[in-house]
Amino acid sequence: MRIIVDVMGGDHAPLETLKGAYAASKELNASFILVGDRNEIDRIAEEQGFDLRRFDIVHTPVVMTMEDDPLSVVRAKKESSMSVGLHMLADGKGDAFVSTGNTGALFTGATLIVRKVRGIQRAAIGTILPTAVDPCVLLDTGANVTVTDEQLEQFAVMGSVYARKMFDMRSPSVGLLNNGTEDHKGTPLQIAAHQRLKACDSICYIGNVEGSTVPLGACNVVVTDGFTGNVFLKTMEGTSKMILKALKGALTKNGITKLSALLLKSSIQEMRHKFDASEYGGSPFLGISKPVVKAHGSSDARAFCNAIRAAVTYAESGVIYDIAEEAEGFLARRRAEREEQAANAQSEISAGGGEA
Amino acid sequence: MRIIVDVMGGDHAPLETLKGAYAASKELNASFILVGDRNEIDRIAEEQGFDLRRFDIVHTPVVMTMEDDPLSVVRAKKESSMSVGLHMLADGKGDAFVSTGNTGALFTGATLIVRKVRGIQRAAIGTILPTAVDPCVLLDTGANVTVTDEQLEQFAVMGSVYARKMFDMRSPSVGLLNNGTEDHKGTPLQIAAHQRLKACDSICYIGNVEGSTVPLGACNVVVTDGFTGNVFLKTMEGTSKMILKALKGALTKNGITKLSALLLKSSIQEMRHKFDASEYGGSPFLGISKPVVKAHGSSDARAFCNAIRAAVTYAESGVIYDIAEEAEGFLARRRAEREEQAANAQSEISAGGGEA
Repeated sequence: MRIIVDVMGGDHAPLETLKGAYAASKELNASFILVGDRNEIDRIAEEQGFDLRRFDIVHTPVVMTMEDDPLSVVRAKKESSMSVGLHMLADGKGDAFVSTGNTGALFTGATLIVRKVRGIQRAAIGTILPTAVDPCVLLDTGANVTVTDEQLEQFAVMGSVYARKMFDMRSPSVGLLNNGTEDHKGTPLQIAAHQRLKACDSICYIGNVEGSTVPLGACNVVVTDGFTGNVFLKTMEGTSKMILKALKGALTKNGITKLSALLLKSSIQEMRHKFDASEYGGSPFLGISKPVVKAHGSSDARAFCNAIRAAVTYAESGVIYDIAEEAEGFLARRRAEREEQAANAQSEISAGGGEA
Repeated sequence: MRIIVDVMGGDHAPLETLKGAYAASKELNASFILVGDRNEIDRIAEEQGFDLRRFDIVHTPVVMTMEDDPLSVVRAKKESSMSVGLHMLADGKGDAFVSTGNTGALFTGATLIVRKVRGIQRAAIGTILPTAVDPCVLLDTGANVTVTDEQLEQFAVMGSVYARKMFDMRSPSVGLLNNGTEDHKGTPLQIAAHQRLKACDSICYIGNVEGSTVPLGACNVVVTDGFTGNVFLKTMEGTSKMILKALKGALTKNGITKLSALLLKSSIQEMRHKFDASEYGGSPFLGISKPVVKAHGSSDARAFCNAIRAAVTYAESGVIYDIAEEAEGFLARRRAEREEQAANAQSEISAGGGEA
């Protein structure tokens, strides 16, 4: 297993990404190609006492920033670590690519350079959420702000495949994020998608789910458009921060609460870890033909190391192979539908001709 | 001040609604008209030892259920407590109406029976959110699943008026809920609304805000469509429950943590109260010409009493008067735009005529 690591981009790159990659290289049974500014890498390695002989290093002078237009990954910034790394993945020079850079650019690059699985209309970002019970995968968490009901069906199937392999479940439950559980709830998109998902054989669809029950473990896969998914994910993050901040306030209020806080320390730390998104590492781009994993932009060394571990697990899991199989099914159904439409049109013409 | 109270509908009606109304009648300087099933009201009053002489009671034999079609409030279920209560408000028999029933029906009834403020295109449900700092009003939290950018502008103005009066603020900050803070973020709706809000003189617009910062107190008013607003609100609710559940687990883990929990009891209860949505009472329908307040469907007596208190405060605040003034401004701007367009068209015709 060879992992291509973009050490540039992100809020704390290249220091934290390099530290994360170094930690991963000691822990994981994989080899690593670091893509980034060679001078920076050398400087940090010397500072931190890292032995670079364990890495292949590809020097790239250009960095993709958070402000860059997504399309610059295939245009003005072809020499960036992100673009070079994605091309290496596409050319088979590694088995997975991990980056903490500009999400839009990474997604555009993955779609245009690495390419989608045949039959998948849109790839989606799948993010694992902490819940009160089992973890749950939410997709799309930001790549496609507007989608069709057919694309949501594909997201549901991809999410199911992912949950089956990664959470080791036979038939993960799938819910459609909506503003109520009844059939008529939502915008026209959700109403159409709900009917489509009900009719879909390859998933275990449990119906519409709400933001109030997903964090309590309503289902294993939650499907939504990238706009709503992004708002959902960030609202969970913001609400967690708000409550943990208030908890800190409650624990440091006076001498007695401070004493209690000491006694509770390990128990509360365990709880914090459980709700810390960075524990789950990176988010794979489901529907891309090779493993591309996005680490959170604010990743520190530990979070980036977790993202690299997630990329290895994802690459080894066979998720992409299974998605490709499901996508063949989509294509076959589409072909059958088209043939049926053509046959119907033909018979209408014949019938019309007979009447004339 | 006369408050019309729908005691039917909701998960725990009429027992909890009646208990809530009774508590409110002892606390508030207002008179009350209870609308609902007289037999049920009498039975509960006897059971609970309530003195009903302090109330006017209007008997209605029909109940609007959560499953009823919203339009039934003006069609099949005109005899329901909700419909009768709304007509009484419209006819000036009371100063505010509070209900815990079917949100869709209540909103439809408010719009069709009580009617909107002149110039307001769509009314919106405004809900107060707990945040780490000041409270914040979110609208729309569920009435309009699809909206236009112009309607979002009206929501922003109504939310500002509300925050100004209710939170006693001179210029509340307004944010547009989005999946990022940059200008180009969101669906075409958010992109258009962002530009429109930037140009709006009557609010203090701070730009796009994210789910990650709203709970931390990013702004005083958050504007969004009813679908996203509902998902946001429920996600905050679900995430709070998830964390408070985990906290309970952490506090009851063993003898030592249980002892600490005892010492922390009052401090943690205070925190729970802060994040309990029912503390903030009901949600007013902003843009309706008279005060209609929705209490949470799962309201217990305390939450329903809080909703009644919110209705009194809202009715006394003058928010509706100020919204009407702002709406006149909208109408004037629209008229000016139309006149300008007509004048332009006229001058084009004249110019065309001159050339011919």
